[in-house]
Amino acid sequence: MKRKSMEEAECPVARALDLIGDWWTLLIVRDAFDGMRRFSDFQSSLGISRGILSARLKGLVDCGILEMVPPEDGGAHHDYLLTAKGAALFPILVGLRQWGETHCFEPGEPHSILVERTTGRRIGPLKLEDASGQPLEAAMTEVRKVAAAPVRTGRKRAAQNA
Amino acid sequence: MKRKSMEEAECPVARALDLIGDWWTLLIVRDAFDGMRRFSDFQSSLGISRGILSARLKGLVDCGILEMVPPEDGGAHHDYLLTAKGAALFPILVGLRQWGETHCFEPGEPHSILVERTTGRRIGPLKLEDASGQPLEAAMTEVRKVAAAPVRTGRKRAAQNA
Repeated sequence: MKRKSMEEAECPVARALDLIGDWWTLLIVRDAFDGMRRFSDFQSSLGISRGILSARLKGLVDCGILEMVPPEDGGAHHDYLLTAKGAALFPILVGLRQWGETHCFEPGEPHSILVERTTGRRIGPLKLEDASGQPLEAAMTEVRKVAAAPVRTGRKRAAQNA
Repeated sequence: MKRKSMEEAECPVARALDLIGDWWTLLIVRDAFDGMRRFSDFQSSLGISRGILSARLKGLVDCGILEMVPPEDGGAHHDYLLTAKGAALFPILVGLRQWGETHCFEPGEPHSILVERTTGRRIGPLKLEDASGQPLEAAMTEVRKVAAAPVRTGRKRAAQNA
């Protein structure tokens, strides 16, 4: 099952996929966003063996996406909650959902939808904009590799945290 | 390698992951966004066996994310280009990149960056906003399952295409 690790890659996409790039991992994260926190709930939702689920949950805890907390019901087991790092995956889940809605269903075929809790209004599309607020397409962008153009870390971090 | 298929799921996240939810698939798509189109280029970039790469490329063509076109150099083989369905994966790649940048690198550790081609300016974060333009967090949203609340397809599709 194990493939070449990308944990040393210079590409952030590769590193992200090193942590979350398999079928079950993002579905567990999806269910955690839906409010699931117990092993048995994830298992019922995903229809997955205890062994595989245990391994995936352990991986998610080890890389800091989920944390184990005392259970709400006071039982002997623990619950799994998204950390801040896990919660930051939300745009990726929304992106997967919106792409899936558009490209993976026949016209008229029913599917779940994501709405604002207070209003019931459907969530609008993820936006990627240029500096002047215009929609940004892939062809308008390019990746600067580390080797080709050394990254100025100080400025980069500052921009990232702005 | 094959797992339970989610191609019949009512959840768009599940269906999306059914197509693109493994390590190599999204990395091939990433490389296609970077302008790669030849088998040998993907193979050099990813360091994977010809067999695995062939299978993944075939899968991406079969599900309509890549298409085969005559090669730029007039050779005997074909090139692989992103279709419109494939190009629509861009926000997901950007989301993976931005999460990876923030959560998968040590402070100061170099990584590639995504910039606007014409200005060299760093791409800003993906935005998810509510109806009034305020940032939307996961806790402000909920999923409406098909079974719990039948989807009104006409309105839904109209909203989706708006």
